[in-house]
Amino acid sequence: MNKYQVRGFQFSGISAGIKQTNKPDLALIYSEVPALVVGSFTTSKVQAAPVKISRRNIRSGMCRAVIVNSGNANACTGQQGLKNAEAMVRETARLLKISQNQVLVSSTGKIGVPLPMNKILKKIPEAVKHLSINNFEKSAEAILTTDHSPKIAIRYGRLNGKSYTVAGFAKGAGMIEPHMKVEKGKHATMLAYLMTDIAIDPKLLQIIFENCVEETFNRVTVDGDMSTNDTALILANGLAGNKLFRPKTPECRQFANHVYEIMGHLSREMVRDGEGATKCVRIEVKGAKNNEDAKRMAYTVANSPLVKTAFFGQDPNWGRIMGALGRSKVFLDPERVDIFYDRVCVARNGIATGPSQDKKAKKVMQKKEFTVTIDIHLGHGSFGVYASDLTLDYVKLNSCYRT
Amino acid sequence: MNKYQVRGFQFSGISAGIKQTNKPDLALIYSEVPALVVGSFTTSKVQAAPVKISRRNIRSGMCRAVIVNSGNANACTGQQGLKNAEAMVRETARLLKISQNQVLVSSTGKIGVPLPMNKILKKIPEAVKHLSINNFEKSAEAILTTDHSPKIAIRYGRLNGKSYTVAGFAKGAGMIEPHMKVEKGKHATMLAYLMTDIAIDPKLLQIIFENCVEETFNRVTVDGDMSTNDTALILANGLAGNKLFRPKTPECRQFANHVYEIMGHLSREMVRDGEGATKCVRIEVKGAKNNEDAKRMAYTVANSPLVKTAFFGQDPNWGRIMGALGRSKVFLDPERVDIFYDRVCVARNGIATGPSQDKKAKKVMQKKEFTVTIDIHLGHGSFGVYASDLTLDYVKLNSCYRT
Repeated sequence: MNKYQVRGFQFSGISAGIKQTNKPDLALIYSEVPALVVGSFTTSKVQAAPVKISRRNIRSGMCRAVIVNSGNANACTGQQGLKNAEAMVRETARLLKISQNQVLVSSTGKIGVPLPMNKILKKIPEAVKHLSINNFEKSAEAILTTDHSPKIAIRYGRLNGKSYTVAGFAKGAGMIEPHMKVEKGKHATMLAYLMTDIAIDPKLLQIIFENCVEETFNRVTVDGDMSTNDTALILANGLAGNKLFRPKTPECRQFANHVYEIMGHLSREMVRDGEGATKCVRIEVKGAKNNEDAKRMAYTVANSPLVKTAFFGQDPNWGRIMGALGRSKVFLDPERVDIFYDRVCVARNGIATGPSQDKKAKKVMQKKEFTVTIDIHLGHGSFGVYASDLTLDYVKLNSCYRT
Repeated sequence: MNKYQVRGFQFSGISAGIKQTNKPDLALIYSEVPALVVGSFTTSKVQAAPVKISRRNIRSGMCRAVIVNSGNANACTGQQGLKNAEAMVRETARLLKISQNQVLVSSTGKIGVPLPMNKILKKIPEAVKHLSINNFEKSAEAILTTDHSPKIAIRYGRLNGKSYTVAGFAKGAGMIEPHMKVEKGKHATMLAYLMTDIAIDPKLLQIIFENCVEETFNRVTVDGDMSTNDTALILANGLAGNKLFRPKTPECRQFANHVYEIMGHLSREMVRDGEGATKCVRIEVKGAKNNEDAKRMAYTVANSPLVKTAFFGQDPNWGRIMGALGRSKVFLDPERVDIFYDRVCVARNGIATGPSQDKKAKKVMQKKEFTVTIDIHLGHGSFGVYASDLTLDYVKLNSCYRT
């Protein structure tokens, strides 16, 4: 038996020739019965055609299928782009004999290039034909662009004697700093799809999804470039047959925790596999006046090119962190700030703790993952974000990505 | 006769051994008579010690000397840092027999490392001894860090039969996105010093300086990392002996234009010589709802790692520009946006104009300098900013800068 299965969900992942390589680039997710759906999409003012179509269709609250292509974002493609996204939905619905408004669509890849609709429409039948409960990983592979490997997670639980599964896959790599808003049947080029067979109240599903997106996908950054296509979805088809559960019950916490763990894993995997990334660094700001201030500081540090190149160089150059804090437009008293690399304090009250600490911090930075803790000592606000480093490979990859 | 002379100003630039190389790292500017001074300093919440001291001393409105070291920023150095900056001022004043509150101080280089005061104090006498009207270029050299070459500009004019000179030098390279505020005798690790012998009303000098800083130094970005040490100063010693002139007169416009040209030249030179930079690109947003919106969009585009790597790759990937516009938190209608590389339109009404235009745009991008014009078609707001590209050399330089 395949490791990644969710009762009632079928998957496929095939090559439609959208990518210039022969890699898979068309994924289909299918639920054998109508599934509850909650989604979250990019808050960019420039929204790709598939995002517009999915935001409209998700309003029904129910979903049977999601069709996803990689290799082309279908963004900045005007009216024809919308027609193309609609055509992908229509063809998928027709072949699966389901309602069009229960089909969602995602695209990821180059912006501003019309979709090769002849190739896609010709291949949707093949995607349908290959649907299987065993093809989870093929779907996960077909949505990738510059990613090195699929990002996959699964959790199992029991509720009232019934077993349930939550599984998800995602892509990330570049243009990663999602700030998604949740819509019911609503707002992320990260793409993430979660599937579960749990039976759940739709409002509860939305609350859990919304909280988890905020705590996971919305707390990672590769390059600070939010995409026109970011999308995260969760589908729940109820086939586990468990009794519905209420908010704040142990059952609810258990399920919410599973969703959180999967999203957390997928989002960290995105940073680990960020374009050219060699590090996954957690930036933890605490002691800020409030959480908003902490968030602003954390993101300014996490997106500073000087801080990120220092991560790449394994250089505990905390002065660059101070520089980023200073320009974050948030009040702070530099002479109260403490900075740690894991447990190594490199600056206390805004000044250096000395060369021996520096040496220890260098050791910490040789690890692939570590935490930078910044204590502002002004209040109780805190915020954490995962950031990749800025590397030679990032520049190589993005300076010749389209040429 | 040396090309760069300003009546009544003497300069020196020597090596004090602050830098590990033997390059010059201590500069002194001296006015033979008290000069009016107006300054502009970083708006970072983390201000280096010399910035704090200079902001205090500049309140007198008069200045006789500026002592500048490179190789160490004297930032995040606590109380000792303040004492060290004061000691530089005190020693300079003592040797030149001038008042301490007419001496300003700047530092640029590594953050968080105590100044090597023994070396500096030992060498200030040498800096004083080498003062000469002919050493303008030596001063300009001694303030550099990662810069490849000095940034220098000079203009000559006549007022009521009297000749005057305005000259300036600056450093830039990294941590460049100044957002300076002007104080009279006030708020930029860009450093820039302008010297003129013109006689001018102090308020008028301030207005001209303030406007010019806003239009030049505050409109360039290398990496979006505003520094803890940014400083720009203008000293006017009146030795030209011209009659004072009023605002909005042709005389005033002529002088203001000279200041603007010098600052404009120095600021573009900073971008051209930005760390690792191979391009100097003007990002021009027009047709925005208002100037504030245009500014926000211009900076978001100018600082986008994806846009900047595409500049490096000479890739007219305008989709990344659309992506940056979309996340700039400003309202726009993507389907009205036109994008040009110089005069080549690559996107009209938010969609591609086709491969032949793409080809032409690639040619434009092969130039070292070109303009990206973004027309939002919503109103009359506009803003322009000069940006460098994000290159392999930027990453190399900054990942091993301190190790």
